[in-house]
Amino acid sequence: MRLAEMTLNSKQIYAGKIINLRVDEVRLPNGQPAAREIVEHPGAVTVAALTDREELIMVRQFRQPVKKILLELPAGKLDPGEEPLVCAQRELREETGMQAGRYELVSRYYTTPGFSDEIMYLFRATELQETEQSLDEDEFIEVLRVPLTEARQMINTGEIEDAKTIIGILAAQEEFIKRTGNLP
Amino acid sequence: MRLAEMTLNSKQIYAGKIINLRVDEVRLPNGQPAAREIVEHPGAVTVAALTDREELIMVRQFRQPVKKILLELPAGKLDPGEEPLVCAQRELREETGMQAGRYELVSRYYTTPGFSDEIMYLFRATELQETEQSLDEDEFIEVLRVPLTEARQMINTGEIEDAKTIIGILAAQEEFIKRTGNLP
Repeated sequence: MRLAEMTLNSKQIYAGKIINLRVDEVRLPNGQPAAREIVEHPGAVTVAALTDREELIMVRQFRQPVKKILLELPAGKLDPGEEPLVCAQRELREETGMQAGRYELVSRYYTTPGFSDEIMYLFRATELQETEQSLDEDEFIEVLRVPLTEARQMINTGEIEDAKTIIGILAAQEEFIKRTGNLP
Repeated sequence: MRLAEMTLNSKQIYAGKIINLRVDEVRLPNGQPAAREIVEHPGAVTVAALTDREELIMVRQFRQPVKKILLELPAGKLDPGEEPLVCAQRELREETGMQAGRYELVSRYYTTPGFSDEIMYLFRATELQETEQSLDEDEFIEVLRVPLTEARQMINTGEIEDAKTIIGILAAQEEFIKRTGNLP
């Protein structure tokens, strides 16, 4: 079965500070044209930073798109040309004032491939040490430590409702199960 | 610590078929103004449909934003006023030709709360029966069954790289572990 679409033309609608919007006209596999609305995003990283006591370093911050304070894993956008690992180290330090002795790339995925090209790199960070928080001037963030077990429960209770954070928690829990043979 | 931002004004940039774009001017907790670019989305559902043999019903489809064919769980946007459960039943049937005797809401989360208000409802569907596929005219989708174990591996190999699908697989795996006491 043919699935691929062919780009016929591409029209920029908006060029913003963080995202751009364009509309592509495509040819469908059956030869018909269709329009696709696409949000361009620079890509981002999420850091699941775990203390020696299986606590996640988490952040609370206000998110204007949903007009709520959300509890999330530390994360941030890639600067132009920035390596994901360097971004992960930078964002963890800037947002939480922690640095990690060890980073592992857990997964690399598209957040919303139906309408956006945003790619997300999820890192696991361990061997943590405290250093100094240095927020951007438009960032207001509260840092807290949440035991992994409790974080997992907070998905069920709705206290955690952010996709990248849910992936980070479920992956950390799976790693814990494989390492210890027990549910956390 | 004060975290919330106050909306000062809101300007629509684009009203599209699936998404809208607006820019909000907000007042930060420190009193300074800032701009927030926001993609409005109608919300969506994902269905983790599992056969009696622990196989996931999956779909392959082309995604123009990333210009790739992706392997995903069945999913789709909410129609105006549509209940998430009704949407899940509709999308599973339309995209895969399956219907399920049992649906459970697994989680409800924001896909990308940094720049979008999209909310996602993840359902687990079991007691499957075959009925008839009925795709939208601009949908081209291949349906396949993937054993849960294999689907989990495909996250590591990069064959699965879609966030909602990763959440659905990790949640299905966790459910399997709790039910059976074993890793799948």
